[in-house]
Amino acid sequence: MDGSLKSGVTRELAEFVAGFDKSSLPQEVRHQVARSLVNWAGCAVGGSAHPALLKAMEAFKPFLGSGHASIVGRTERVDALHAALFNGISSHVLDFDDTHHATLVHPSGPVFSALLALSEFYPIDGETFVTAIALGIEVECRIALGVCPAHYDIGWHVTGTVGGFGAAAAVGYALKLDVQQMSWAFGIAATQAAGLREVFGTMCKSLHPGRAAQSGLSAALMAQQGFTSSERVLEAPRGFGHVLSVNPHLSDSVIDLGKRWVVMDNAFKPYACGLVIHPIIDGCISLHKQMGTRTDAIERVHLRVHPLVLELTGKSEPRTGLEGKFSVYHSAAVVLLDGMSTSKHYTDAVVNRLDVIALRPKVSVEIDRSVAVDEAFLVIELKDGSVLSQHVEHALGSLEKPMSDADINLKFLDLTAGKFSKEQSHQALEQCWLVSQLTNAGDLGALLRGE
Amino acid sequence: MDGSLKSGVTRELAEFVAGFDKSSLPQEVRHQVARSLVNWAGCAVGGSAHPALLKAMEAFKPFLGSGHASIVGRTERVDALHAALFNGISSHVLDFDDTHHATLVHPSGPVFSALLALSEFYPIDGETFVTAIALGIEVECRIALGVCPAHYDIGWHVTGTVGGFGAAAAVGYALKLDVQQMSWAFGIAATQAAGLREVFGTMCKSLHPGRAAQSGLSAALMAQQGFTSSERVLEAPRGFGHVLSVNPHLSDSVIDLGKRWVVMDNAFKPYACGLVIHPIIDGCISLHKQMGTRTDAIERVHLRVHPLVLELTGKSEPRTGLEGKFSVYHSAAVVLLDGMSTSKHYTDAVVNRLDVIALRPKVSVEIDRSVAVDEAFLVIELKDGSVLSQHVEHALGSLEKPMSDADINLKFLDLTAGKFSKEQSHQALEQCWLVSQLTNAGDLGALLRGE
Repeated sequence: MDGSLKSGVTRELAEFVAGFDKSSLPQEVRHQVARSLVNWAGCAVGGSAHPALLKAMEAFKPFLGSGHASIVGRTERVDALHAALFNGISSHVLDFDDTHHATLVHPSGPVFSALLALSEFYPIDGETFVTAIALGIEVECRIALGVCPAHYDIGWHVTGTVGGFGAAAAVGYALKLDVQQMSWAFGIAATQAAGLREVFGTMCKSLHPGRAAQSGLSAALMAQQGFTSSERVLEAPRGFGHVLSVNPHLSDSVIDLGKRWVVMDNAFKPYACGLVIHPIIDGCISLHKQMGTRTDAIERVHLRVHPLVLELTGKSEPRTGLEGKFSVYHSAAVVLLDGMSTSKHYTDAVVNRLDVIALRPKVSVEIDRSVAVDEAFLVIELKDGSVLSQHVEHALGSLEKPMSDADINLKFLDLTAGKFSKEQSHQALEQCWLVSQLTNAGDLGALLRGE
Repeated sequence: MDGSLKSGVTRELAEFVAGFDKSSLPQEVRHQVARSLVNWAGCAVGGSAHPALLKAMEAFKPFLGSGHASIVGRTERVDALHAALFNGISSHVLDFDDTHHATLVHPSGPVFSALLALSEFYPIDGETFVTAIALGIEVECRIALGVCPAHYDIGWHVTGTVGGFGAAAAVGYALKLDVQQMSWAFGIAATQAAGLREVFGTMCKSLHPGRAAQSGLSAALMAQQGFTSSERVLEAPRGFGHVLSVNPHLSDSVIDLGKRWVVMDNAFKPYACGLVIHPIIDGCISLHKQMGTRTDAIERVHLRVHPLVLELTGKSEPRTGLEGKFSVYHSAAVVLLDGMSTSKHYTDAVVNRLDVIALRPKVSVEIDRSVAVDEAFLVIELKDGSVLSQHVEHALGSLEKPMSDADINLKFLDLTAGKFSKEQSHQALEQCWLVSQLTNAGDLGALLRGE
């Protein structure tokens, strides 16, 4: 073999995954994987009746393979490749899944969707499952660290593009791929990597983690059969880094690999909309409490925020629930009126509520580069001339103010309510926390179907 | 609806496809589609036992859906999505399929693979099939014209990236999508567009048209169900053109749309390797005739060629048949020795033949920007001091010197020999030429399985 292949970031990551000893996974990482599972599963159940999923299922209905794998929150069972696709869609469609803040990757969707689907076909013990997920999220976020922020700024939805590497790493570890196969799996994932930010606000955004899950699962399965690819796809002159970014800094992807776990930086959202809106929602909840019943009296709302707020969520007249998730105006208006933010505040009906439509144009947004991305300054003027203000230093769900395990449990129970009985919800929740003790992690499938 | 959506290249192409009257398709375009079908089908049969296809089939075997659709050249039948994938792989794996020279797109793989698979599930009459293919190839090549050469130069395998648009257009026309659905289908295809040149020389190259076929077919099926996407994905600031190219010139994509047919510029390869090697092969065939039995006496071979020859096919020590397709050194050596070039000259065995290995290092390549891409100057020095030379002005298979219908028939019969009986080959060939008269184009499936 060409000696030049024996070094490089692709090889280093492949060796890390293929050679990982599951007994060396730190306890805090195991715990973080369980938190990620609870959060991912709740989001997928919550999104399991969304039109985006239903339309995708209807489109592919004539072509599905036999039913080893579960569609979370639903009774149908399908082939693993489509289960990976469908669960990737449902887990992201509420824009409520996890976020690696440094890169804006939503890491769980591609990785859990692929590995759960595999585990219902190819039994995987709980310890291996948890380790594989940790490795998948780690690889995904680390590759993103090597190409972001330029990669995202150009217009790539980083969850779509790096998600396939994460899914390939998780599945590849579970399938016990060797280093060469793992390198090929990364190559196969890279050459399917896709997802444009242009489609944000449409059903296609949630397609990205779905396709990434399916592509990454496919990549590992193909590499296992000896389907060849580049063995240095990340760093090669025409590889992933150079083609999908500018000045990639892939050495950042392997700093302290196996010593520092990037998966620990994964954060969970309390609100079902674009992350940059979250400090504003915290502020609006506080202001609603201050106002009491005087929401009719709002004359004007002024927000001073980080520039990304308008870049990502500047839709001033959203028409659908999905567009509402990318409208700071909708979020501020509806939270000021209702005093809270749940996934149900981003439906087509709520976005078109007359009181919300009336309040939206009163919201003005000033961008200020000195404001942090998880920070916001809010001022409300009421018709009687009084002024209320609020400064949110760190949004709930930020690394400085993370959601507690109890917060994540409440989120899971909220998202599964109406889909599962109370008993089913509690049982599924309990087993998610105990995932590493399962004889076969694939048993999660039945629990997450609500059986 | 936002007025700005009503113009733009995406909308213009969607209107062109959705509103096309099949009776207005020019006769020469119909004929060109039939030529493309014969060439595509021959390549797919020829590649139907290639390890790349077999490994992909093995990887996905547990997950296949029920068998409406044919795998060309084989007896198995699978779901349409996987048939599209598999036929896309087999039709490209010999690097013998068609080429739109201006952009280096290999247009047939994504489009025929997607539409044939659909037609075995959803009956399509021959006229509609031929029109849909023409529209698919037209859209695919025209989008490529709007982003190339920069898109390809960056490192994108343009067949992988634009192929999904072509497949979506062909399938979308057959499914009678309206303009909005067609725009969404382009959006869904765009956000799955992928394929890196880094993987050239591995099995992944052939994965690109396969995934493009599958993604484009999926895109049209999803759009039909109302799965939403951007309606201006080509030209938007974070759309396909800007993100996957630099300074896209998408107005080129719609010049004389419907008046001039780019599909007429589609060309067919006489040799199963990188196109830029073709003039060199023509020259080596001539030189072999001049040398007669003196191939042992070759001292040195000097080639003066276009710069792309070394950029694309500069592998000096190929180890596999696939790498041989991207080695000008292998191609020159083996053709000088054997006096001809067939798909069988790019197997692992021939690439590792001792006489070929011995001759390869005697081949030197000089790049010269004044030489055209379908041109070559060849000089051979023999051990007795004599010198032979050859100038190839236009390679066989170039637009200036196209393959005749008879050439394409011979290629089909060569590629299907050993897979089909002589009678089966002739029958399949005849029906391909008569495709526009078929009541159901899906009947081609059985013929191309060799039934």
